[in-house]
Amino acid sequence: MKRCRFLAKGRLHHGVYRDGLLLDEAGEAHDPEAVTWLLPFTPGKVMGVALNYADHAEELGLSRPEEPALFWKPNNSLLPHKGVVRYPKGAEYLHYEVELAVVVGRPMRRVKAKDALDHVLGYTIANDLVVRDYVSNTFRPPIRAKGRDTFGPLGPFLVVEEVEDPQNLALRAYVNGELRQEGHTSRMLYSVAELLEYISEFMTLEPHDVLLTGTPKGISRVLPGDVMRLEIEGLGALENPIEEEA
Amino acid sequence: MKRCRFLAKGRLHHGVYRDGLLLDEAGEAHDPEAVTWLLPFTPGKVMGVALNYADHAEELGLSRPEEPALFWKPNNSLLPHKGVVRYPKGAEYLHYEVELAVVVGRPMRRVKAKDALDHVLGYTIANDLVVRDYVSNTFRPPIRAKGRDTFGPLGPFLVVEEVEDPQNLALRAYVNGELRQEGHTSRMLYSVAELLEYISEFMTLEPHDVLLTGTPKGISRVLPGDVMRLEIEGLGALENPIEEEA
Repeated sequence: MKRCRFLAKGRLHHGVYRDGLLLDEAGEAHDPEAVTWLLPFTPGKVMGVALNYADHAEELGLSRPEEPALFWKPNNSLLPHKGVVRYPKGAEYLHYEVELAVVVGRPMRRVKAKDALDHVLGYTIANDLVVRDYVSNTFRPPIRAKGRDTFGPLGPFLVVEEVEDPQNLALRAYVNGELRQEGHTSRMLYSVAELLEYISEFMTLEPHDVLLTGTPKGISRVLPGDVMRLEIEGLGALENPIEEEA
Repeated sequence: MKRCRFLAKGRLHHGVYRDGLLLDEAGEAHDPEAVTWLLPFTPGKVMGVALNYADHAEELGLSRPEEPALFWKPNNSLLPHKGVVRYPKGAEYLHYEVELAVVVGRPMRRVKAKDALDHVLGYTIANDLVVRDYVSNTFRPPIRAKGRDTFGPLGPFLVVEEVEDPQNLALRAYVNGELRQEGHTSRMLYSVAELLEYISEFMTLEPHDVLLTGTPKGISRVLPGDVMRLEIEGLGALENPIEEEA
């Protein structure tokens, strides 16, 4: 099921997406182009993993981390489908990053990898935007580079009970319709289950906490005026335009 | 006013601390030793600043950061006054760190230093615990070193309208009654107001977000069985014992 939330005629709706239509809680259909999209759920804490695809580590000239390299994606950065990413004044290299986002469903502490996926509620798409100018140590990107307002588009759907295997999904990112990034979750260095075991060893994960699982090869510069479209197999497409900051 | 929250006979109370007594919302007095302390408010996002005192940077053999070195203190780490810090199995160096914690009162974005303190609701004490073993880059401590469950004691009070100047407070940390750490907020490299300007340039701060402002010289190893007592002038004392993890 593809759950979502949106505003239509000023009202908040909890809906599902089916056959190209948004159906609200009363079963009424809405045009996906006419609504205002919201985050599909209210995230708790959000973390990302740097360098979790070998091909992406290679393109940055870096080796595989000895353990998962976690960083924070603060909630002020989150942005729904169609929301406007604000390009920071003076930045040289703003990069998109398409990532599978895992949404926790049950409290987790010291959960082993073999049981970890039982604690997952669902999946969505994340765009882990970063001002590469500000990153001096890629293993631990600074809050300023990844935590900026609007730098965490997430959505459009919370997809539950449809993803059979999170390690078997194709990812793609388009900029202005041109394919720029392509990868497959089978190429993660640490699988979703391994990451959840690693994190829950020291940290309690709670329902609606979110884990971004890294990006494959193919990052490139984006600029004001560009539109990013990120697709993951079975999860839909997350689209966000970029505008100059006021 | 020293605001706090506590449980007494199973009930949640919002109280104030006055003349050695806890007064609940009905004005009834409670023995501070007999209640269960809670966090004095529900924090939003919590951030810390590494190396914000010259004497602490020196003791770690590091130089002053070129810009504030922010890191995340996730909410799972938070722990109230008297709560038990769990010592991680296999850790060699667990360090306490006494820090002035600033609690945001009004939404902030692009606020200049000269106006920043008008947006502060109040102050409290934080113990920014860290497993030093896990820190390979002190400018950006990893989530695993600082984000562990119970590694963020905070409290006991939210002190509002009493702190005249956050840059004029003495800090002290005792372990089992022995004075181990001593400093003064006048020796911060970046002042509270400067930190809030720096952060709000790229990130919206919201009411009840928290900023830990760094620790002075005098960190040392603590072990299971130890009791930490952190004092800041005018803010009371935050006390937490350490126990071995199960």
